[in-house]
Amino acid sequence: MEFAKGHGTGNDFVIVPDPEDALPLKDAQVALLCDRRFGIGGDGLLRVAPSEDPAAEWFMDYRNADGSIAEMCGNGVRVFVRYLLDKGLAEGPEVAVATRAGIKTVTVAGDELRVDMGAAEFGTTSQASVEGFTWPGQVVSMGNPHLVCQLGDEAELEALELFHQPRYDAALFPEGVNVEFVTGTAPHVRMRVHERGVGETASCGTGACAVGAVALRHAGLDTGVCRVDVPGGTLTIEVAEDTLYMTGPAVIVAEGAFRL
Amino acid sequence: MEFAKGHGTGNDFVIVPDPEDALPLKDAQVALLCDRRFGIGGDGLLRVAPSEDPAAEWFMDYRNADGSIAEMCGNGVRVFVRYLLDKGLAEGPEVAVATRAGIKTVTVAGDELRVDMGAAEFGTTSQASVEGFTWPGQVVSMGNPHLVCQLGDEAELEALELFHQPRYDAALFPEGVNVEFVTGTAPHVRMRVHERGVGETASCGTGACAVGAVALRHAGLDTGVCRVDVPGGTLTIEVAEDTLYMTGPAVIVAEGAFRL
Repeated sequence: MEFAKGHGTGNDFVIVPDPEDALPLKDAQVALLCDRRFGIGGDGLLRVAPSEDPAAEWFMDYRNADGSIAEMCGNGVRVFVRYLLDKGLAEGPEVAVATRAGIKTVTVAGDELRVDMGAAEFGTTSQASVEGFTWPGQVVSMGNPHLVCQLGDEAELEALELFHQPRYDAALFPEGVNVEFVTGTAPHVRMRVHERGVGETASCGTGACAVGAVALRHAGLDTGVCRVDVPGGTLTIEVAEDTLYMTGPAVIVAEGAFRL
Repeated sequence: MEFAKGHGTGNDFVIVPDPEDALPLKDAQVALLCDRRFGIGGDGLLRVAPSEDPAAEWFMDYRNADGSIAEMCGNGVRVFVRYLLDKGLAEGPEVAVATRAGIKTVTVAGDELRVDMGAAEFGTTSQASVEGFTWPGQVVSMGNPHLVCQLGDEAELEALELFHQPRYDAALFPEGVNVEFVTGTAPHVRMRVHERGVGETASCGTGACAVGAVALRHAGLDTGVCRVDVPGGTLTIEVAEDTLYMTGPAVIVAEGAFRL
């Protein structure tokens, strides 16, 4: 089976080209391909399938590392478009991609790619706890739930041990929550993230969007631009009147054949 | 750059064929190839280079994931030989491989491969602590240092949190120590391992050798066979009069090209 591997700010994906829509991957096959020791390894898998929607040529069949289906992934869609561009399967500067969350338009921005992620929706305030320490946090929805906690300084951020899911208000988040820990203020913040069901990751696209939106609001801005440093690189979050754009790198590092 | 990826009981390697000895990989290149998110990902890298020793055709240039040079790796040499056999670069049933620890002879044993690992050397007793709990342990050298600790039952083994280096007697192990936690008795034990400088791994070949030798000795046997289940699979340890053999699986899962 043909594959490629790529990443966006360290959020990495196994890419499986399937232009004939002939590879309906079973959960166990996805899980093996995404296994970092027994397979290729990735946070998720992107199957490149033909789109049934006339507004886009390609459909991003995004799967979590356990094989389960997911709607969208902000880092994944950039890697998906980078693959299409590299292989001559699409042309910039604008590429429409069909996803389970609708058509997403990705724009070439120099060496980077820019995605319309939709508006951040602010919720209530809550709190998260790690190893006996508790921080207040802002609830934000980017389609999925986030809890953005402001920390004191870089040393506090570095000392955090995110081996386990931070404790949170289970009544408020019955399906779990992604927790972001942030230092700094707009226009430049730094974050770490614990993704629900996964653990700490090098990058979380929607998490960076939530963090950028909160940082701008803390600075008294309804719109604006904020640089968000994640462990795996840098993302730029632009909050507009009624949506939010994320800009960041995406690279393909390898191609090959996998023995299923 | 051409590469393959393979593993032995979940101890995984990036393999780089270099029959002309023309790829003196820099540390940073090895580190990128072994990076699980920005590269291919592996516990180490095996460069397949011609041997200068007439007793072997191929030299296993084994590198740790950070690029540093290592002498030998029991799981790695099986994966190395599996690659040679798959590519028709060597023929069984016996394949001699030049390593920095001398010539190693690997024997095809059904679907598995068998390696002469040299004798286990027993040292003193000591102890290891994890999160406030302390267990006594047997010191064993397989060329590298091990501390083998017997636990009570499977539940105790599963509950262990090995996110950090277990505490040990730093005066006894000035260069650190690999710590194995074991349940069961010969001829069948189960283990987990914390490798110094790495963390918990799916498998440690020399660790399994140390554990098998200790289990046999606990059973009053100077020679014999012990099955050792590691998190990533099963290894068979055979203690002979003056050496020790390890037998286990090795598979190549993918081949491709990497963009350096």
